[in-house]
Amino acid sequence: MTDPLLLRLRLTVRFSDCDPLGHVNNAVYLTYIEQARIELWRRQVGPLSRLRPDGSRGEGFILARAEVDFRSQARDGDELEVRLALGGFGRSSAVYEYEIVDVGSGRLVAEAKTVQAWFDYDANKTVPLTEETKARLSQSFSDIVQA
Amino acid sequence: MTDPLLLRLRLTVRFSDCDPLGHVNNAVYLTYIEQARIELWRRQVGPLSRLRPDGSRGEGFILARAEVDFRSQARDGDELEVRLALGGFGRSSAVYEYEIVDVGSGRLVAEAKTVQAWFDYDANKTVPLTEETKARLSQSFSDIVQA
Amino acid sequence: MTDPLLLRLRLTVRFSDCDPLGHVNNAVYLTYIEQARIELWRRQVGPLSRLRPDGSRGEGFILARAEVDFRSQARDGDELEVRLALGGFGRSSAVYEYEIVDVGSGRLVAEAKTVQAWFDYDANKTVPLTEETKARLSQSFSDIVQA
Amino acid sequence: MTDPLLLRLRLTVRFSDCDPLGHVNNAVYLTYIEQARIELWRRQVGPLSRLRPDGSRGEGFILARAEVDFRSQARDGDELEVRLALGGFGRSSAVYEYEIVDVGSGRLVAEAKTVQAWFDYDANKTVPLTEETKARLSQSFSDIVQA
Repeated sequence: MTDPLLLRLRLTVRFSDCDPLGHVNNAVYLTYIEQARIELWRRQVGPLSRLRPDGSRGEGFILARAEVDFRSQARDGDELEVRLALGGFGRSSAVYEYEIVDVGSGRLVAEAKTVQAWFDYDANKTVPLTEETKARLSQSFSDIVQA
Repeated sequence: MTDPLLLRLRLTVRFSDCDPLGHVNNAVYLTYIEQARIELWRRQVGPLSRLRPDGSRGEGFILARAEVDFRSQARDGDELEVRLALGGFGRSSAVYEYEIVDVGSGRLVAEAKTVQAWFDYDANKTVPLTEETKARLSQSFSDIVQA
Repeated sequence: MTDPLLLRLRLTVRFSDCDPLGHVNNAVYLTYIEQARIELWRRQVGPLSRLRPDGSRGEGFILARAEVDFRSQARDGDELEVRLALGGFGRSSAVYEYEIVDVGSGRLVAEAKTVQAWFDYDANKTVPLTEETKARLSQSFSDIVQA
Repeated sequence: MTDPLLLRLRLTVRFSDCDPLGHVNNAVYLTYIEQARIELWRRQVGPLSRLRPDGSRGEGFILARAEVDFRSQARDGDELEVRLALGGFGRSSAVYEYEIVDVGSGRLVAEAKTVQAWFDYDANKTVPLTEETKARLSQSFSDIVQA
């Protein structure tokens, strides 16, 4: 990844993340990269858009597309690091790129990419990203987040 | 179970419900019995209490306690039937009892019990069950629900 | 999808498939399409490669890549149909394309694509697909599978 | 809990652990306490019994019963501590008791109890616990495990 790194998240593979083939189930990689996004957004723009006391929900990202390339297997108890980089902004969207690496061995476990649209959850439609919002969404964090 | 049966739900074990031991992960049995409750409540009192347009959430059950006895193993592709029976009402709670049976063999897979409290999600506290609500929550359904 | 349809699978969205945004969590779509693959392979080549009495595991597919485009939201209780079509074979891989449709409304919920490699789980490496295996993996099923 | 504490595990609630009610789904508490058992057993007796190169699986615990009392709600991003204590041994079983506490506030989130049987995964039956095994299963760990 040559793009600016926004966040690094470390997590331990749970036993229940694994399937009868003895490795992390493919769907769970989307959970791992989601967790990196959630932690990023918590820091950049506050908790993910949801119910407020007045019943409104405000603006936030909604996932439009996800891609994962499975490079090697991870197993129960492995410590993984998710690296989230900003691929770029569209008019009302952002692209994130991810690497998931096994911390112990440095081995690449998966690569991923997501496209998310900036969404008005009350009007139920995509809205343009302002320059101010793009600036907040470009903030990067150098500490390693434990999740 | 000698109690009045309220609902029978059939579902197929998903591959991802299973863990590296090759059987349904223990936590997933709580998901199976939850699905039976959800389908029951959908019929008895409408969809589970959640956000309304005005921001209120209304009343509904909240889970207070769950018990599961694991009797035999279930595997990917097995068709299971969850039988939900009414154990009784308290002042502001209900007890449900469950059997989970493998449809193909008739084998008992698990037994479970839950206690749920009737909860005002806006006031954030338990409230008494009215006689009218108890009557609705006693309705039973004789068809087999597919989930 | 113009490709030959191999399997149609119907499933009901579980309450626990949904997240705090009130809709099916993005990762769960990979679970839905996995379930369609599992049911397809169960019919075409027998249960997914795993432990045999002699400790060997044999050959089977391993997932190499997955892509999902999220087209609309699905919610708890929705009945969805997963349509799995054969996109084509490589030397030691196959491409599957998927549509996930809401049965009630006909609305498109998601489109997806996976690439899977034919894998020798004992030798731990990708192996070429024989013509015989390709023929078995091309079998289509016209009934609707309930899962 | 007055019983001897064997392990303390800290974990962060994942967004996908939460359901449309905006809190940790009830089934996920069984995942949290399972993770504490897995980490305990990894230290006491090695990784959980599963496939060996010769196809055998050896002895290990199998879950027989689980109980959870839900005391308060936990939400996305909360850091929780699972405290696992030894309730006692039977002839071929052990009882564990758990408290799940919100680290930030000290608030009790759930209490739980599990009974697990010592199981010969090759012979597919429960076997007695030897004194040596009981001694290993009584080992406690004073550091806080991050998961």
